[in-house]
Amino acid sequence: MRRIAVMDDFLSSEHKERIGETAARLGFLVDYFARAEDVLPVLDSYEIFFGHDAVEVTRQGRNLRWFACAFAGIDPYRSDGVWANPNCLFTNSAGAYGIAISEHVIMVLLMLLRQMPEVQRRMRRRDWRQVDRIRSVNGLRLTILGTGDVGTEVARRAKAMGAFVTGVRRNVQKAADPAFDNVYAIRQLEELLPNTDALVLCLPGTLETEGILNRARIELLPNDALVINVGRGTAVDQEALIDALRGNRLGGAALDVVTPEPLPPEHPLWQAPRLILTPHCSGDMALGYTRDRVVDMFLENLERYAAGEPLRYVPNRRRGY
Amino acid sequence: MRRIAVMDDFLSSEHKERIGETAARLGFLVDYFARAEDVLPVLDSYEIFFGHDAVEVTRQGRNLRWFACAFAGIDPYRSDGVWANPNCLFTNSAGAYGIAISEHVIMVLLMLLRQMPEVQRRMRRRDWRQVDRIRSVNGLRLTILGTGDVGTEVARRAKAMGAFVTGVRRNVQKAADPAFDNVYAIRQLEELLPNTDALVLCLPGTLETEGILNRARIELLPNDALVINVGRGTAVDQEALIDALRGNRLGGAALDVVTPEPLPPEHPLWQAPRLILTPHCSGDMALGYTRDRVVDMFLENLERYAAGEPLRYVPNRRRGY
Repeated sequence: MRRIAVMDDFLSSEHKERIGETAARLGFLVDYFARAEDVLPVLDSYEIFFGHDAVEVTRQGRNLRWFACAFAGIDPYRSDGVWANPNCLFTNSAGAYGIAISEHVIMVLLMLLRQMPEVQRRMRRRDWRQVDRIRSVNGLRLTILGTGDVGTEVARRAKAMGAFVTGVRRNVQKAADPAFDNVYAIRQLEELLPNTDALVLCLPGTLETEGILNRARIELLPNDALVINVGRGTAVDQEALIDALRGNRLGGAALDVVTPEPLPPEHPLWQAPRLILTPHCSGDMALGYTRDRVVDMFLENLERYAAGEPLRYVPNRRRGY
Repeated sequence: MRRIAVMDDFLSSEHKERIGETAARLGFLVDYFARAEDVLPVLDSYEIFFGHDAVEVTRQGRNLRWFACAFAGIDPYRSDGVWANPNCLFTNSAGAYGIAISEHVIMVLLMLLRQMPEVQRRMRRRDWRQVDRIRSVNGLRLTILGTGDVGTEVARRAKAMGAFVTGVRRNVQKAADPAFDNVYAIRQLEELLPNTDALVLCLPGTLETEGILNRARIELLPNDALVINVGRGTAVDQEALIDALRGNRLGGAALDVVTPEPLPPEHPLWQAPRLILTPHCSGDMALGYTRDRVVDMFLENLERYAAGEPLRYVPNRRRGY
């Protein structure tokens, strides 16, 4: 019997039922594991793995023929060195997280524009005083680094709220969603930054995106600009960001991703002013829609796999997304 | 010379320049006052007043021919007893606040759906743990009480984020914005509440809206429903709301308006769980767009007034909006 190892820490009983039925019909047996490490001792019995946080599975899975990653980010799997079977098929779940992450972006964008951290501080002291200046998404010049699923969902929502949306991407030849008013190439970033009210980073973790928001680029932003990162913490020079916030050379920032994670208790980011920190939760599996979509994508591919058809949702492993 | 008294606590120098130019061209002289009470000693010299928080101006303005209210809410001016000149023209600024207030609603809606108060509590303790369940605007059944400027702007934004939007209004005959999937009459509210994931109140303060969200209606909402009030605090039975939050019979609430305001330090609302309190700031004049729009509306009407044409933005004073 051909076997599938599935991590079930994000699955409901309905999800398991659906996976079980489809697998049985296609001639597969499914075993469930709470953590990736629980699979390792018996890994050689499995042809397919569906889960997350499982670089040891790719590292040790000599017989593994398909690794289905339940996350969108694939940075841990980029290097050839982590693949025991160099011919293992690899799919991810990019596309399942756009709604959850874009809603997080809109939330923190509004919180920063409306000085919500200061309002909340006053409320905790039972101090009923309004702040004297708020801003609006309406008319805001929003620059989005990364125009994939997440960047596009952010653009759609911001556009519906009246923002002027510029997308920045690697390949400007490729068509972008109509929610983007403009699309520029990454090499034009320097020209865009002085005219950016809010910069949203939704980039995968790759060699190219590491440190992309460096000190010089932060300094090109207007003094009241906002920075929001929901991609990977490595994209931002955190020290330069803290300096800019402390020196009032930035209006505010919201980081859902940082380096390292979890952020150590003594890290200076905890005390940076006008910074909204969240624990890499913008796109996690806390949202039911995301889990449903991740399962849908896996089952769609399982049908294809069984039929010998090419899989969908195949990232470029070396490129990193 | 015909004279206009203008409160300038919300005006920029550009606003004053525009008001001065238009007034001069139309044959008016403008004097500025920081507070309504500063006008009172010289009130009889003014034909027009443009400002806010000024019920003493209507009460004492026997010679006043036009009172231009810079706010949208007109509850203080409803009764005949507060008008020294029963024939005084009355305009308000409903329509200037929809963008600011709707962005507040989207912000607190997302904060409640994503358990942001709990995330922020953990972050303040430097506790890097995610919450286990968040929800999305996508697919949310949103019921909006009040389909005017504010309700419509909320509906448009929520619709763009995938919500199913039901509007509830007094007059179902009148056409509603296409952002509403459905429009019901207030008398049908009881049928709607059990199928409401989030209830947004954007109602004016009138006799009809007082206590509209009473204990019985709160109990008709699902146990994880959210309640957001940006209209008037009088619309909600606060004691019943606190009981429902404490008893886990509501998912959460966000109140930007309460009774009384400011909320006294000993008030039990400060300690209600899963409640986001803000100091009546959702639609105040902190947003530049709002101030610009309020000035635009006044100047448009000043042209009409000088030409002897009927004014726009005239609320029904006795009805209350």
